[in-house]
Amino acid sequence: MLATAEQRVAALQQRYRLDIQAALRGAVPDSPTGFFSLLRYHLGWEEADGTPSTADGGKALRPVLSLTACELAGGDPHQALPAAAALELVHNFSLVHDDIQDRDTTRRGRATLWAVHGEPRALAAGNALRVIADRTLMGLVESGVPEDLVVDVADELTGQYLEMIEGQYLDMSFEDSDDVTVEQYLDMIGRKTGALIESAMFMGALIATSNRAKASAFGACGRALGLAFQIRDDYLGVWGDPAATGKAVGADIRRKKKSMPVVHLFENAAARDRRWLSETYARTGEIGDRDVERILDLLERLGTPRYVEQAARAQADGSWQAVAGLGLPGDAEQTIKAMAEFFVTREK
Amino acid sequence: MLATAEQRVAALQQRYRLDIQAALRGAVPDSPTGFFSLLRYHLGWEEADGTPSTADGGKALRPVLSLTACELAGGDPHQALPAAAALELVHNFSLVHDDIQDRDTTRRGRATLWAVHGEPRALAAGNALRVIADRTLMGLVESGVPEDLVVDVADELTGQYLEMIEGQYLDMSFEDSDDVTVEQYLDMIGRKTGALIESAMFMGALIATSNRAKASAFGACGRALGLAFQIRDDYLGVWGDPAATGKAVGADIRRKKKSMPVVHLFENAAARDRRWLSETYARTGEIGDRDVERILDLLERLGTPRYVEQAARAQADGSWQAVAGLGLPGDAEQTIKAMAEFFVTREK
Repeated sequence: MLATAEQRVAALQQRYRLDIQAALRGAVPDSPTGFFSLLRYHLGWEEADGTPSTADGGKALRPVLSLTACELAGGDPHQALPAAAALELVHNFSLVHDDIQDRDTTRRGRATLWAVHGEPRALAAGNALRVIADRTLMGLVESGVPEDLVVDVADELTGQYLEMIEGQYLDMSFEDSDDVTVEQYLDMIGRKTGALIESAMFMGALIATSNRAKASAFGACGRALGLAFQIRDDYLGVWGDPAATGKAVGADIRRKKKSMPVVHLFENAAARDRRWLSETYARTGEIGDRDVERILDLLERLGTPRYVEQAARAQADGSWQAVAGLGLPGDAEQTIKAMAEFFVTREK
Repeated sequence: MLATAEQRVAALQQRYRLDIQAALRGAVPDSPTGFFSLLRYHLGWEEADGTPSTADGGKALRPVLSLTACELAGGDPHQALPAAAALELVHNFSLVHDDIQDRDTTRRGRATLWAVHGEPRALAAGNALRVIADRTLMGLVESGVPEDLVVDVADELTGQYLEMIEGQYLDMSFEDSDDVTVEQYLDMIGRKTGALIESAMFMGALIATSNRAKASAFGACGRALGLAFQIRDDYLGVWGDPAATGKAVGADIRRKKKSMPVVHLFENAAARDRRWLSETYARTGEIGDRDVERILDLLERLGTPRYVEQAARAQADGSWQAVAGLGLPGDAEQTIKAMAEFFVTREK
């Protein structure tokens, strides 16, 4: 490859960025009640006082993957724009509600929506993002997608979206349990993170080809990419470079996040260490410096860093294998491999 | 009329009850995670421990209105069942989130979902109800509704649903303000309560006739019925018979609800009384017995009870006038008049 994986992904993001932005801005309505300014605040377009903002609106990963899948499958990515924008809105809806559920007060360097406007209004604004996503998706009819295919696409999004919510529910249940296996954990993040990314690539390819089998292969590719992305996230949350991630080493250990490294540790630690771990995680508050050190040490001895890296790599390999049978042009395979490579090597 | 309005409405509810129940039960999936038992608890089918429940699942007003509109417009109500069930699920989604927003701990005589399972899980369960509603709506394709009409119906629900959320947002804003006019209040409840009931009758009639103009007339009828229902609700919240409503006289005054009576009072009270009202509502906590008495007295002197009754009556009249031009058979007009009459005279 002449360009690095990161450069190739950045080029894709750059290529679609303006179209995605325009589709998103066109999707959020205005009204005299002032309600929709809450949405614009969350999306990073406005400050809390309504003045324009240049805040970071996020990576737009899902729309980029959707448009890429559409193009790689031989379609016109402009036709898939309503689906791409809908995905980004659904993703942002889930972020607004996640922040309420987790009581997180900052996101992308700014106060979260509920922290600014209170929980009841933020809850309503999140719901509005979800409805606007539905409405935006219906724009596929205007962009020339046949109505039976629009119904299929809507069905797909609905199904995956329900999986995403169930994944969030499982995630909450796992936080209270010491008996989660890595297998169960992978199933959970497959739902929580994988389902919507599966949707993204499935929809893009279905719009391009009207062929459910091909679209399902792209969908499987998306789910594997989603898992690779999430597992790398879990890795960076513990062993990421603080200069790149903006988080201290062991940040996710400190705040007791039951991400993949800790799940692996609980599952494989010796009985004595496990008892100590259970006691430590059962105490209220964050984990202190010395105990964070000890947990990092246990993780090293168990080979968890390498295990987690390999798990991410396995998903990355699975992602391009999922579409290997489709006979895509060589450049398409290179693009997917580059995305997969970027997902498992990114430093932030 | 041989039968009373209440008897006619009860007969409609009875006629559709089993079909609606079956459609709803078929809509909620099961899964090994246990997630969907939260939905079944809220819907009154299960107790919190998973055992069957005979709890009151609510009036199913929206589905009954949707199926009635379908039948009155000459269609087969069975074909509209997926839309009717979807409406009831959307309604229940909004109840689950409303209870979180308002911190209400009981509904229909049972603990609310968040009070049992905590707020994060209840929030997710509410979202799931909304997704299942979408999926259920897509069942219209299987029940033989043409796909372009299904897209129209989905569009309608999405638009009205966004109005509902904006209405909820306005409602929250109004609770913090002393300057809301009756006109603004009517606009707000038109969105918050009217929009979904408009949707119900619009969808039923559109499925029956494929005619947007006719469906819009039914929709306008629905919105007026929704307003009549809500205004009567406001009336009963202040002057309802405690034996029928299960609430004390002046209950909504005591808990400072800015429903129509209080909005009318704030808008029309003499300057001196208004100052006292503003001070009283600005204090923390509930309003005490003596002040409730004084407010009830002010309302009487201003003629508010009669004003509110007339406002409900005006919406009831508007509801059947909205469909008067359609040349419906005489019995259809009687049915709508009976519903309107029931909505403004019900005691609970």
